[in-house]
Amino acid sequence: MKNSFKKNPGIVCIGGGTGVSMILSGLKKYPVNLSAIVTMFDGGAGSTGKLRDELGILPPGDIRQCLAALSVEPGFAEFFNYRFNKGVLRGHSLGNLFIAAAEKFTGSFGAGIKKLRKILKFSGVVIPVTLNNSNLKAILKNGKMLGNEDAIVNCKDLSRAGIKRLFLDPQAKINPEADLAIRKADLIVIGPGKFYTSLIPNLLVKGVKEAIKSSKAKKVFVCNLMTQSGNTDNLKVKDFVGILEEYLGDSIDYAIFNTGKLTSSLKARVEKVFPGAKLVGYDRAELPKSKFIGENILDKKIRKMNPSDVFIKGANQRTMVLHDSNKLAKILLKLCKQ
Amino acid sequence: MKNSFKKNPGIVCIGGGTGVSMILSGLKKYPVNLSAIVTMFDGGAGSTGKLRDELGILPPGDIRQCLAALSVEPGFAEFFNYRFNKGVLRGHSLGNLFIAAAEKFTGSFGAGIKKLRKILKFSGVVIPVTLNNSNLKAILKNGKMLGNEDAIVNCKDLSRAGIKRLFLDPQAKINPEADLAIRKADLIVIGPGKFYTSLIPNLLVKGVKEAIKSSKAKKVFVCNLMTQSGNTDNLKVKDFVGILEEYLGDSIDYAIFNTGKLTSSLKARVEKVFPGAKLVGYDRAELPKSKFIGENILDKKIRKMNPSDVFIKGANQRTMVLHDSNKLAKILLKLCKQ
Repeated sequence: MKNSFKKNPGIVCIGGGTGVSMILSGLKKYPVNLSAIVTMFDGGAGSTGKLRDELGILPPGDIRQCLAALSVEPGFAEFFNYRFNKGVLRGHSLGNLFIAAAEKFTGSFGAGIKKLRKILKFSGVVIPVTLNNSNLKAILKNGKMLGNEDAIVNCKDLSRAGIKRLFLDPQAKINPEADLAIRKADLIVIGPGKFYTSLIPNLLVKGVKEAIKSSKAKKVFVCNLMTQSGNTDNLKVKDFVGILEEYLGDSIDYAIFNTGKLTSSLKARVEKVFPGAKLVGYDRAELPKSKFIGENILDKKIRKMNPSDVFIKGANQRTMVLHDSNKLAKILLKLCKQ
Repeated sequence: MKNSFKKNPGIVCIGGGTGVSMILSGLKKYPVNLSAIVTMFDGGAGSTGKLRDELGILPPGDIRQCLAALSVEPGFAEFFNYRFNKGVLRGHSLGNLFIAAAEKFTGSFGAGIKKLRKILKFSGVVIPVTLNNSNLKAILKNGKMLGNEDAIVNCKDLSRAGIKRLFLDPQAKINPEADLAIRKADLIVIGPGKFYTSLIPNLLVKGVKEAIKSSKAKKVFVCNLMTQSGNTDNLKVKDFVGILEEYLGDSIDYAIFNTGKLTSSLKARVEKVFPGAKLVGYDRAELPKSKFIGENILDKKIRKMNPSDVFIKGANQRTMVLHDSNKLAKILLKLCKQ
């Protein structure tokens, strides 16, 4: 057991844009070496998907959110996430355009991200999990094929039918920089994020499981707050952890889950915009305290999606229920020191 | 006569994007306080004009070039000037999109530029000459009306017909930040740049002439290298200075002009892409040495326009003849110390 660090502890966060950026925005206030390893399989109809199609680039969206969260300059995050609301640029965020230009300008996504790090100031490093151009696909047990991340997120009978196989096409290889960060880490935080489309895909990248397994870091899973209708209905904390460990091929050290309840007003809103989504349930008796850390980690603030996110249907009325990044940071730092 | 400066001398460069950015890129290597005061009347068919129309913003193009020239980070300028070459973004430069987003995000062009200064590192300050939305117009002596900057640049009989009146519609007022910079300056450099569409328009902004007049700075004009076919045919160094002083309502202290000759290969190229353009002539006997500084200030390098600048017809084959920014910087610094 390490009780002290000669240098700042290295924390690697693995997941997608929204969840990882939330974790980063809490942890960046502390003296830690932060790295975000981010999924690269957004194939949706949003700004990212459009840029990916039109410019033939790797998807910038998740990376953008994490860069915004790690920016040092006050007010930069909102600026980087700003979306144009008129003309041919409508729906595109400035950050996505910046990352797209960086890839085009330097000739590769990896070099582009490094270029941005030189130009802008960040309190951590954002690393694409892979530099390969690949799509997330799923074959359900009923034989149905889902050809990209967007189709999987929006699939209404994935939970009912069950997944036969989730895979990357073509197979993607770990970004060497991600490999190094994982191996050198003191703490690896997986999640939160859309389970099958933002978290698990990282583990499907060739080399990621191996790197995590060989790392001496403590492995922590931050469990989703809500189930996703059609994707993860009825999954409980124990189920999320079980599935994750299956994909990981290994056990995690800790799982952090939420014990807080939705206020009735938030509950009503959530039911309206995410019908079918429920707080992830748990059965205390099934969850050993040495591994499962239950706390009220709900963010009481109600977040609205950016109404300029016109590529996402109904964005102007969507509400998101998020983790409290400060509470999570404190729990994670405690684990670091244990 | 000042022989020394307690602090670094303040140099204010006034003009358009290409010319001023060239001056800045030379001067920024020295310990001077640099400000660029930049024309805001680009109404062309380029990326700037399109963004101006589509988003209802002030024109970012000239500002972008100057910001790029003043950036501290090596390789930033090329990145900021990078133009997308595919999809709906085709022809737009990243810097233009960045400035457009900054205006939209902060709610005003002035605040947007200040925001950029906080986020990025520059070795000087770029100041829009006005924050009003205005267009450059011309009435020729033959009664013809030219409704924007683009129409004037492309007018083939402006030199022949003569300008009856060049004006801003609606009248624009000086940006207070520009006013302050001019009044505090030790040296004011006007030009080089497209004479009637990048230089003179700055003097048409209400308050600019007054600020220049009341400033104790030495006033220097950097004369154009080439005549512009249709706009400034046959004008000699003395003519440029005379017209400038008329618009300024005052005398300048120095005029720097070029005495170098085009190599035959460059001459052939220029004739092909800018038919009718000639080196600006001069008659040494008419130009007192106390005011007119003649040197070979031609840049020997042949510059190609960015082939992705698809909104500009024939950009992929355009060659530009530019001033040598290092030679100019040395001449200007000498004037500073005199």
